[in-house]
Amino acid sequence: MAALWMARCGIKTRVVDKRDATVRAGQADGIQCRTLEILDSFGIVDRICKESCHMPEMCMWNPDRDGLIHRSSRIPNTIKGLSRFPCGVLLAQHRIEAILIEEINQYPTVHIHHNVEPVSIDIDNNNTHDHTSHAIRVKLKQVERGHLNHATNGVSSSPIRKLEHARQGDQETVHARYVIGCDGAHSWTRAQLGFCMEGEQTEYIWGVLDIIPLTDFPDIRSRCAIHSAESGTIMVIPREDGLVRIYCQLSTVAPGDDGRFDRSRITPESILEAAQKIIKPYKLDYKYRDWWTVYQIGQRVGNHFSAQERIFLAGDAIHTHSPKAGQGMNVSIQDTYNLGWKIAMVVKGIAKPSTLKTYETERRSVAQELIAFDQEYSRLWSSRPKKAITDQDGINIADFERAFLQQQLFSSGFGVHYGPGLLTAHDSSSNGWVAKCPAPEGKTANGEGQGVASSHQPLATRTVLGKRFPSFKVINHCDARSWHLGERIKSDGLFHIVLFAGDVSQPSQMDRVLCFAREMAERADTIPLHRGRVLFESQHNASTQDRGGVARLLTVHSALRRCVEMHAFPPLLLPYDEELGYDYDCIFVDEESYYQGHGHAYDGYGIDRTRGCVVVIRPDQHVAWIGELEDVSGLEAYFRRFLVQPSD
Amino acid sequence: MAALWMARCGIKTRVVDKRDATVRAGQADGIQCRTLEILDSFGIVDRICKESCHMPEMCMWNPDRDGLIHRSSRIPNTIKGLSRFPCGVLLAQHRIEAILIEEINQYPTVHIHHNVEPVSIDIDNNNTHDHTSHAIRVKLKQVERGHLNHATNGVSSSPIRKLEHARQGDQETVHARYVIGCDGAHSWTRAQLGFCMEGEQTEYIWGVLDIIPLTDFPDIRSRCAIHSAESGTIMVIPREDGLVRIYCQLSTVAPGDDGRFDRSRITPESILEAAQKIIKPYKLDYKYRDWWTVYQIGQRVGNHFSAQERIFLAGDAIHTHSPKAGQGMNVSIQDTYNLGWKIAMVVKGIAKPSTLKTYETERRSVAQELIAFDQEYSRLWSSRPKKAITDQDGINIADFERAFLQQQLFSSGFGVHYGPGLLTAHDSSSNGWVAKCPAPEGKTANGEGQGVASSHQPLATRTVLGKRFPSFKVINHCDARSWHLGERIKSDGLFHIVLFAGDVSQPSQMDRVLCFAREMAERADTIPLHRGRVLFESQHNASTQDRGGVARLLTVHSALRRCVEMHAFPPLLLPYDEELGYDYDCIFVDEESYYQGHGHAYDGYGIDRTRGCVVVIRPDQHVAWIGELEDVSGLEAYFRRFLVQPSD
Repeated sequence: MAALWMARCGIKTRVVDKRDATVRAGQADGIQCRTLEILDSFGIVDRICKESCHMPEMCMWNPDRDGLIHRSSRIPNTIKGLSRFPCGVLLAQHRIEAILIEEINQYPTVHIHHNVEPVSIDIDNNNTHDHTSHAIRVKLKQVERGHLNHATNGVSSSPIRKLEHARQGDQETVHARYVIGCDGAHSWTRAQLGFCMEGEQTEYIWGVLDIIPLTDFPDIRSRCAIHSAESGTIMVIPREDGLVRIYCQLSTVAPGDDGRFDRSRITPESILEAAQKIIKPYKLDYKYRDWWTVYQIGQRVGNHFSAQERIFLAGDAIHTHSPKAGQGMNVSIQDTYNLGWKIAMVVKGIAKPSTLKTYETERRSVAQELIAFDQEYSRLWSSRPKKAITDQDGINIADFERAFLQQQLFSSGFGVHYGPGLLTAHDSSSNGWVAKCPAPEGKTANGEGQGVASSHQPLATRTVLGKRFPSFKVINHCDARSWHLGERIKSDGLFHIVLFAGDVSQPSQMDRVLCFAREMAERADTIPLHRGRVLFESQHNASTQDRGGVARLLTVHSALRRCVEMHAFPPLLLPYDEELGYDYDCIFVDEESYYQGHGHAYDGYGIDRTRGCVVVIRPDQHVAWIGELEDVSGLEAYFRRFLVQPSD
Repeated sequence: MAALWMARCGIKTRVVDKRDATVRAGQADGIQCRTLEILDSFGIVDRICKESCHMPEMCMWNPDRDGLIHRSSRIPNTIKGLSRFPCGVLLAQHRIEAILIEEINQYPTVHIHHNVEPVSIDIDNNNTHDHTSHAIRVKLKQVERGHLNHATNGVSSSPIRKLEHARQGDQETVHARYVIGCDGAHSWTRAQLGFCMEGEQTEYIWGVLDIIPLTDFPDIRSRCAIHSAESGTIMVIPREDGLVRIYCQLSTVAPGDDGRFDRSRITPESILEAAQKIIKPYKLDYKYRDWWTVYQIGQRVGNHFSAQERIFLAGDAIHTHSPKAGQGMNVSIQDTYNLGWKIAMVVKGIAKPSTLKTYETERRSVAQELIAFDQEYSRLWSSRPKKAITDQDGINIADFERAFLQQQLFSSGFGVHYGPGLLTAHDSSSNGWVAKCPAPEGKTANGEGQGVASSHQPLATRTVLGKRFPSFKVINHCDARSWHLGERIKSDGLFHIVLFAGDVSQPSQMDRVLCFAREMAERADTIPLHRGRVLFESQHNASTQDRGGVARLLTVHSALRRCVEMHAFPPLLLPYDEELGYDYDCIFVDEESYYQGHGHAYDGYGIDRTRGCVVVIRPDQHVAWIGELEDVSGLEAYFRRFLVQPSD
């Protein structure tokens, strides 16, 4: 994800991966709805949705009075209406990686090198204050090829054999402005920086089998929680290509004196045996196994997310937890989705380096929520059902189901809420929010103690500052095509200023719109607007067109199309180019479409249909600022805080 | 399309194309809804929809009392609810070809050779009775590379320079069982066979410009019919990547004495000038032009569609007409979509060679309808609006709009209705249909005078024998995923037998289902069922798995999922494989889904929710047979007519 951002933003980047190409089996597989939206913003979600297993349903199986498992409920696996992607999907990590790499390779500035690992990393402390300096020196060396893919047990130590006596020519030194360590739970980068993980190891031990199951269990193609009376718990996750992932609690494995268990005693056969006990009287067996592993749940967060905002850590390198909530790959992708555009803007000299401090303030709170979530979630999964009301050790199944429903919002990825800070304005109509979400460790969420821009949340009651901008169907004014507004907001490193223009069929409202456009035009220096067209899916070359600017302006009005001609809008809202003519993709309407109903977007965003408002969306689609059409100076103040100004 | 069928069916095939790779601009661009369904059945529609321009709206512009054009109406461009693809899309032919070729190249049996053209073609008449013989001999030779792509004027004669003195080694002779000439309006294959086109040339002359328009005309991104008072008519077709295609009537060009006009007098500038007159007072200009051409409308149908059902003609080689209805590429793709699976089944020895006669009987009536449609359509487009009620030469604009609406069904591709014949049973409950749709030229629609199988249309009132099987949303019984049933019916050369199992929660109905399964199992020799899994999108290799059989059995019941466990269905409906376990993709339910509403499929198909029925769908998705669950012998009789039987 970090590399994909760099590719889209045209930043010269090297990816080094000690693995031989990609893993072929196992590892992560769950993609939550929010991650699907992110992948869509890069134009690659359709490939992923096509290959993957969709998982609309969750089935709960619990012991009946006789101790036999039975289906106690079937519920939707995701809360309805959260996203234009109705439910999460499952696909092997190696396929997701392959699709990301295929996309990255369409762009010229990113180079991916496999079988290369770092030897050392140093920061030149004399130069870190100057963010244009290549202050980081990383030594790299080649790794012998072709050993990793034999590993089918995810817990074995890395099978890469190093070239112990590498010749000088095999080493290379790279001078970099920034480094991101996305190197996993055993992060080499983290170790080099002397950072550590803080948190606890639990006693819960689980085995994982990726198999094509031979079974008469009727819900094997749904997500299932199977709590047996005495033998532990299974989570069933259906997968693409007939595969099923089975997470099976290994209740019989006792940890050793050091609190760690003896992995060598666990085999795929012993995991299967444990699963068979839980799932009986149904049969479970397999002939084809794709992968297996075993893990002990530990919940930890890194003590630092970056060194001087020059070397960053992301993903498992800063948070580890149990895999069963399907969060790992998602939260990790979202770490660098938060970070990538910030680095790109600083590298390009558009944003101040202090912008980079928001990475840790924003993502640390997500990591901490993840851990808190996972502690509760793992406990519920790993405990046996109560036998009687007086049974202190067991969990109440109704509690499990209630907790599952509550946690769906978190699981879907839409719970993420960045606090007020340099990149997210606070709501001037209320002081409550900041108090409710204090920044961690006494820092302000801002990250550098500056004041936070003011914004007016009540103008868009369902478009929450700091949360991701929701999506509703609207119609292109110029061609009547129906779009989810979210589909028009691509990840290309630009902010989006959405002018909810209100009912422009009323002359007084159109006057407000014209006035907004004039005021914006006068501020072209402080808020330079992007003049390029929205990328066409078919034209990768077009993506490298750099028409400058930091924000794209989109208009969504609430009048009927037939009551307003597009040429009534001022040139700022309907840009004209001498070679390409008008840009017909920037004015949208909240109206009934020909074939796909009415999106009721103004209702969905909680915006007044007559008066509208202005919403600023960050390049990662989080809501940054909300104001009146007249508050262009407030909008300018928001951008001035972090954009390098011509006078700087 | 022919090659794609051969690729999917594993038939050894050579494609020869005298062009240098693909055309880069111009030619066809309209893809109607039915064609999108067909492309989806090969798994490639998403790539096409993503790149293409969607065109939901049609705008009519007509002269007002002062003779100035104004927008008189805006209507949906396609009838609502015809298809899961709500409206047609536009994409340059070269992109469509590229996507088809990319897909074909995933399979091993088809080889595409560019810069090769045929020199001669002969049939060995002594061997034509034996359909296993390679009775056709085609001599091929290399063409010099790299000249076609300079042609930007579609009417210029072929710019390919032939190797006049080709060495012997440049020639090659191919022995083939079948040949399909898809070589266009000036078909070499047709000429070699001595066949000809029958029909008329009109006086209507039109120019075409593919440009990025510089205009203030407000509907330039919608499909428009612009009838000026005196200067002729324009059709506007918005395209991908900001392009617009403008069809402009050239009313000032008089044909010469031979009825043909002098093309050399027409230039892009003269077309633009004509368009500017029609569209005024709006401005129209361009800096970028992608392509241009000029054509005289002629409507013709070939006198023969095949020679001895060994050499076939398809597409423009058998029907030419005006391009404005966006029919050309669609009807042509659908020609070989009708033919390809038939050839594959005969080549594999599954179907009798007489099956191939149905190509001409079925597609000739489509070609004739196309021409009749186009004659009316072209006249309406090419005539000027009436000036007064007494104006005999002009057309009534209201008539134009009414005709447009009537013709939408044809334009969308869903009007195609194959008459009763060897591959389509007749409705025994009515004798009316055959009389209404007589086969052309005194032949029976059957094509060889055999009796036609009996079928019972009233069991599925909205699933019309001979028309394409409609699609409604259903839910997979095993995993609750919502699908359009049409998405599950892939083009893999198999018939589909859809058991509408009715309300299987009623024991008496489940008994009927069990009885149907027993009866079918007993007929495994005459109607061998395919045992392979539905192809996974991600696994092209899986597609080459040949598990035999001629039909796949799908079940759609109307009980609630929670009332019936999947294991209540007999093994014929829920097949089990010792390595892959159960096939979880063959039982569906007409029920409310978690996220995507209720498909009301039984209503949509016009089938009784309690008793259900059985529907047979041909490999090209046309409805072939409808009967009661008890009428397995009738179903068998349908297949026996054209399948090679073990006793043959």
